[in-house]
Amino acid sequence: MSRRVATGVRGLDTMLAGGLLPGTAVLVEGAPGTGKTTLGLQFLWEGATHGEPGLYLTFEEFPEDLYRDAAGFGWDWRQLESEGRLRTVFTSPEIALADLTTPGSPLLQDIHTLGIRRVVIDSAAHFREITVDPVELRRHYRVAVNALKREGVTTLLLDEDNQWIGGLAQAPHGLSFVVDSVIVLRHVEIESGIRQALFILKQRGSAHEREIRQYHITARGLEVEAAFRGREGILTGSPRRSVAQRAVDAFG
Amino acid sequence: MSRRVATGVRGLDTMLAGGLLPGTAVLVEGAPGTGKTTLGLQFLWEGATHGEPGLYLTFEEFPEDLYRDAAGFGWDWRQLESEGRLRTVFTSPEIALADLTTPGSPLLQDIHTLGIRRVVIDSAAHFREITVDPVELRRHYRVAVNALKREGVTTLLLDEDNQWIGGLAQAPHGLSFVVDSVIVLRHVEIESGIRQALFILKQRGSAHEREIRQYHITARGLEVEAAFRGREGILTGSPRRSVAQRAVDAFG
Amino acid sequence: MSRRVATGVRGLDTMLAGGLLPGTAVLVEGAPGTGKTTLGLQFLWEGATHGEPGLYLTFEEFPEDLYRDAAGFGWDWRQLESEGRLRTVFTSPEIALADLTTPGSPLLQDIHTLGIRRVVIDSAAHFREITVDPVELRRHYRVAVNALKREGVTTLLLDEDNQWIGGLAQAPHGLSFVVDSVIVLRHVEIESGIRQALFILKQRGSAHEREIRQYHITARGLEVEAAFRGREGILTGSPRRSVAQRAVDAFG
Amino acid sequence: MSRRVATGVRGLDTMLAGGLLPGTAVLVEGAPGTGKTTLGLQFLWEGATHGEPGLYLTFEEFPEDLYRDAAGFGWDWRQLESEGRLRTVFTSPEIALADLTTPGSPLLQDIHTLGIRRVVIDSAAHFREITVDPVELRRHYRVAVNALKREGVTTLLLDEDNQWIGGLAQAPHGLSFVVDSVIVLRHVEIESGIRQALFILKQRGSAHEREIRQYHITARGLEVEAAFRGREGILTGSPRRSVAQRAVDAFG
Amino acid sequence: MSRRVATGVRGLDTMLAGGLLPGTAVLVEGAPGTGKTTLGLQFLWEGATHGEPGLYLTFEEFPEDLYRDAAGFGWDWRQLESEGRLRTVFTSPEIALADLTTPGSPLLQDIHTLGIRRVVIDSAAHFREITVDPVELRRHYRVAVNALKREGVTTLLLDEDNQWIGGLAQAPHGLSFVVDSVIVLRHVEIESGIRQALFILKQRGSAHEREIRQYHITARGLEVEAAFRGREGILTGSPRRSVAQRAVDAFG
Amino acid sequence: MSRRVATGVRGLDTMLAGGLLPGTAVLVEGAPGTGKTTLGLQFLWEGATHGEPGLYLTFEEFPEDLYRDAAGFGWDWRQLESEGRLRTVFTSPEIALADLTTPGSPLLQDIHTLGIRRVVIDSAAHFREITVDPVELRRHYRVAVNALKREGVTTLLLDEDNQWIGGLAQAPHGLSFVVDSVIVLRHVEIESGIRQALFILKQRGSAHEREIRQYHITARGLEVEAAFRGREGILTGSPRRSVAQRAVDAFG
Repeated sequence: MSRRVATGVRGLDTMLAGGLLPGTAVLVEGAPGTGKTTLGLQFLWEGATHGEPGLYLTFEEFPEDLYRDAAGFGWDWRQLESEGRLRTVFTSPEIALADLTTPGSPLLQDIHTLGIRRVVIDSAAHFREITVDPVELRRHYRVAVNALKREGVTTLLLDEDNQWIGGLAQAPHGLSFVVDSVIVLRHVEIESGIRQALFILKQRGSAHEREIRQYHITARGLEVEAAFRGREGILTGSPRRSVAQRAVDAFG
Repeated sequence: MSRRVATGVRGLDTMLAGGLLPGTAVLVEGAPGTGKTTLGLQFLWEGATHGEPGLYLTFEEFPEDLYRDAAGFGWDWRQLESEGRLRTVFTSPEIALADLTTPGSPLLQDIHTLGIRRVVIDSAAHFREITVDPVELRRHYRVAVNALKREGVTTLLLDEDNQWIGGLAQAPHGLSFVVDSVIVLRHVEIESGIRQALFILKQRGSAHEREIRQYHITARGLEVEAAFRGREGILTGSPRRSVAQRAVDAFG
Repeated sequence: MSRRVATGVRGLDTMLAGGLLPGTAVLVEGAPGTGKTTLGLQFLWEGATHGEPGLYLTFEEFPEDLYRDAAGFGWDWRQLESEGRLRTVFTSPEIALADLTTPGSPLLQDIHTLGIRRVVIDSAAHFREITVDPVELRRHYRVAVNALKREGVTTLLLDEDNQWIGGLAQAPHGLSFVVDSVIVLRHVEIESGIRQALFILKQRGSAHEREIRQYHITARGLEVEAAFRGREGILTGSPRRSVAQRAVDAFG
Repeated sequence: MSRRVATGVRGLDTMLAGGLLPGTAVLVEGAPGTGKTTLGLQFLWEGATHGEPGLYLTFEEFPEDLYRDAAGFGWDWRQLESEGRLRTVFTSPEIALADLTTPGSPLLQDIHTLGIRRVVIDSAAHFREITVDPVELRRHYRVAVNALKREGVTTLLLDEDNQWIGGLAQAPHGLSFVVDSVIVLRHVEIESGIRQALFILKQRGSAHEREIRQYHITARGLEVEAAFRGREGILTGSPRRSVAQRAVDAFG
Repeated sequence: MSRRVATGVRGLDTMLAGGLLPGTAVLVEGAPGTGKTTLGLQFLWEGATHGEPGLYLTFEEFPEDLYRDAAGFGWDWRQLESEGRLRTVFTSPEIALADLTTPGSPLLQDIHTLGIRRVVIDSAAHFREITVDPVELRRHYRVAVNALKREGVTTLLLDEDNQWIGGLAQAPHGLSFVVDSVIVLRHVEIESGIRQALFILKQRGSAHEREIRQYHITARGLEVEAAFRGREGILTGSPRRSVAQRAVDAFG
Repeated sequence: MSRRVATGVRGLDTMLAGGLLPGTAVLVEGAPGTGKTTLGLQFLWEGATHGEPGLYLTFEEFPEDLYRDAAGFGWDWRQLESEGRLRTVFTSPEIALADLTTPGSPLLQDIHTLGIRRVVIDSAAHFREITVDPVELRRHYRVAVNALKREGVTTLLLDEDNQWIGGLAQAPHGLSFVVDSVIVLRHVEIESGIRQALFILKQRGSAHEREIRQYHITARGLEVEAAFRGREGILTGSPRRSVAQRAVDAFG
């Protein structure tokens, strides 16, 4: 229906019927170690190298760590920063909220000056450090997301839950309301190993693939592979072979 | 037994033995991304194009987002608004409650002037932002529902729970008392994919189908399909093949 | 051992070895949409049409809604009210408690004047709105139940829990102590549908059937059917076929 | 090793290697409707008709209800009360605690005058109404149990938990320390019915049978039957047939 | 690697590669009725009759009850107390903590005078009655354990959890840090009966057997038997036959 | 991509594609008795004997206990301490935090003087004793980790959770954000025994093996063995044989 924003992740754009919808906010919900930061870097790198400047807004990671992480995938972050194609801001969620709602704030100036089209916020979890009041928290989510929508940028909102393994965890209170799309990253145990699974739970205003797909974190970032054929109960974290597959295993 | 209010969702009206009962309040309980907003829009569109003006009362979504969402299904919301057949109100739950109980309030005037017959409230969850006191909350639910019943309108009360996948979650405290019907929307994992399931848990004063049906969100809105034949445990979120089906799989 | 109070529900009276014990309090614990109100109406209608006047004490439902519900089953509630055979009281739990313990209160006068033999309280859940203190709550339950026992009436105490599907929920704190019998209504998922199951968990001073039976809500009210033969784990909400049944399915 | 106190329940005394140890306190932990009160009455009746006067200390049940319950099993409670062989006391846990620790209190006088050898306390749950402080609560349990031990009586301490079905609930905090023995009563679902199961979890200073046995509540009180042969997972509340039994079912 | 401290429990010493390490603190974590007190008595009796005087420090049990329990196993506790080989102290956790850290306190004098080599503390759970503050609680555990380590004694710290059946409970907060070894006692349901299972979860500075073994409480105390061969899922509390065993059952 | 820091654990370095990344912080999350301390000692011993001095910072263990534990593996800790190759510091988390952030503090002087390259913190759990405020706690984690990163040392942050058996526990709030890698140690029940399982959940900036491997604690420390072939559901704590393996068992 409209132009798509390619994530740069092989396979994920296909799942998204071409990419994200421009100007939307996307929640990336993942367990520790599922590659949320990598996905964020990859999303911005894809944009920056295709004419869409990007901003990485981090409340936790030192920029140096991000540079090193990016370098591990062959992405020279500093170079593109020096060219005005990328920008990394290390701040607190309180300051970010204030800046996003204050016309002429340094953050908004950056967005305007550089023509930022893509933003990554690392992470939504840090808003939960500002307040434990669910109403106030929801207001913060909404303020941040709406401010970025006003700028017309496409935003990845990274969020980490505490569930090591499996996928039946609950949505973070109030956050799924605010976003247009939800991508979930999970560890699952298959054949005595820990595999990574990705699925799209929601994409507002657009169809999307509904398979649960395995992905790998390779030297080129995330790569989405085949769906988990022949498995049931993937999202329990401990899938079992499906019956058809069992028959093949046992008698095939 | 009485005239029915067609939802406009293919298959759902059949499940409802023709549609909703006029003048009742219907809880639509769904996980994030199950299409609650789409169902709400579809319900109002169906009415507006068949002589029953509708009102979308939202505490969260910007009207612009709703217009865009509707447009994605080919529904020109603004056009019907300009014709007085649809009305979108973006307000807070507190103001909505006050308006619904104040004779001559702008909201009630709208309802009367336009001859509103259908209302969608998006969402019941926002009432839980007003108070954490269960007694007060229940009173709010009741006030809103009863005020709309007095107007004779049929109301969809959208509600979101935090359960990503599966269906054994608990009913929101106090809400199931207040409504006449309950429709539940769920994500379930089947054959390595995330599918959508719908069932009717309660319909006051009328029989209804009790199958759990799969549905799709298509370019024309929700479409309810066949029941999940050959599956057990759908509402655990991770169904297994039933035994009869297993025999067919393995030996058939 | 003594005369029984027929509930009017086909099959349930058989399970109860003839009916309820006169003068006892019966907890009807059910999930949303399992037909608790219908059972209450049916119980009173059965009595009123067989010489036992009844009182419906509601803290939530408008009498008009009850009249409509009753009419849906062919029960002309208003007619029997006008004949003094039924009485509907819409009040608050606080006032009901005060009335039940005040000699000569309007409620007790009604009971005496009309010769009420059956009472339905809709619902026990509303007592939990008066207080969160478990000791005080239990005292309220006890006061209400004992006051009605003093009047010699047989009472159905409707109660709703929040569990959508399945039956392993916990008993409401303190309530099971106070009542003489417990009837449980549940939704369970069978063959991709939501079915209704009923069982008797307790009947003081009398034997009772211990099967879990399926029931339907028909145009004549609840009808209790056969037990769930060939199923195990019904009360998990997601039963499986029993092994004997599987053998029949697979090889039979 | 020492004389035993017969419970009067057929089968249970066998499980207890002859009966309870004299002078001990026995926790009877059961779900609603499992027959705890019946067991208590039966225990006292057995004693009273065999030269061991008994005391029923109730914080909840009206003596009239107990008389009626007992009569249902053919036990003429009033008659034995008039003969000084039984005594029923309806009081509060606070007063009971005070009386048990005050030399010459009415309660202790009763115990001494009548030569009480068996006591039933209905129920331990009511002590939890006095305080929510776990230390104080434990002290209350201990005071009550130790006072009765000083009198040399054998005590059944009835306790109700909130778990409708199944048996994996947790022990009530601090109570299992205080008692010498624990008997557990449970509802379990078998072949579409609710059955009753009993097992002994602890018997201080004596061996005891460790089978889980089915029991019935008959016209003569509780009767303990065979163990649940051919079943696994009884205490999950939803047992499955064991594999050996499945083979018999399927091929036998 | 060093001399071992035999527990006196047949089979357990084998599992411990000869016994406990001298001067260590061992947590014995068990459900109600698993025989913790018996194990404690047996441990001290074994020492006392082999030249290692022992101290039973109880916060709950009356010494008379312990004497009786011991007598049930043929252990004449009073006799060995009169010979200075055993000592039983009934005190509060507060006083015990004060005494253990006050040079010259009665408790430490006893330990020195009698040459105590083994101590049983019954139970660690009572420390949780002093405080609910986890930091302070942990300090108490540590103070008690370290004071006893300074005396060079080997300590069994009995602890009771509330889980009736099964073994997947959580470790008591902060306690597993403080101790050198952990022995777990559990009830499990097997073939319609309640069996007892024991395993060693941790033994600092030494190898140990890692099987889950069944044990019995016999007239001679605990006796550890064979491992639970042919079972899976023992620690769920409701084990299933393993597949290999199933094949034997079905076809063997 | 860069030089690796060998852990000294046979098999683990292979899983880590050569070892840990220098200058990173690694969370070692384990249940009680899984060998976290042993792994910490082994990591430092490996370094100290290969030119990389190490510091063991303990908030719980007496240095004497560590010396004894190390000696049990043949590691003469005192000797290497006297040679300035190892350093053991027993302090409180508050003092450690203050020292790590105060230039010239004794702790930092030690690190500089001895040329410390490896640090073990035993344990992260003790930071949770300083505060229950999640924001403050996260700040403490971050301060400690960042201070050590500034020194360029590689840090093992030991952490204990309360889950006896199984692996589906939740990540400690806020901690997984702060660290670069996560290694998880678990007890699992297999064939009636308690086995130890290890997997790497996250390794920032590097690929790593994703198998779940069994390990043993031997006389030479941890030794990582083969993956758990033929098992499914390892991280439930109670694995089942996979279907392929079942076929081999039953028919092979």
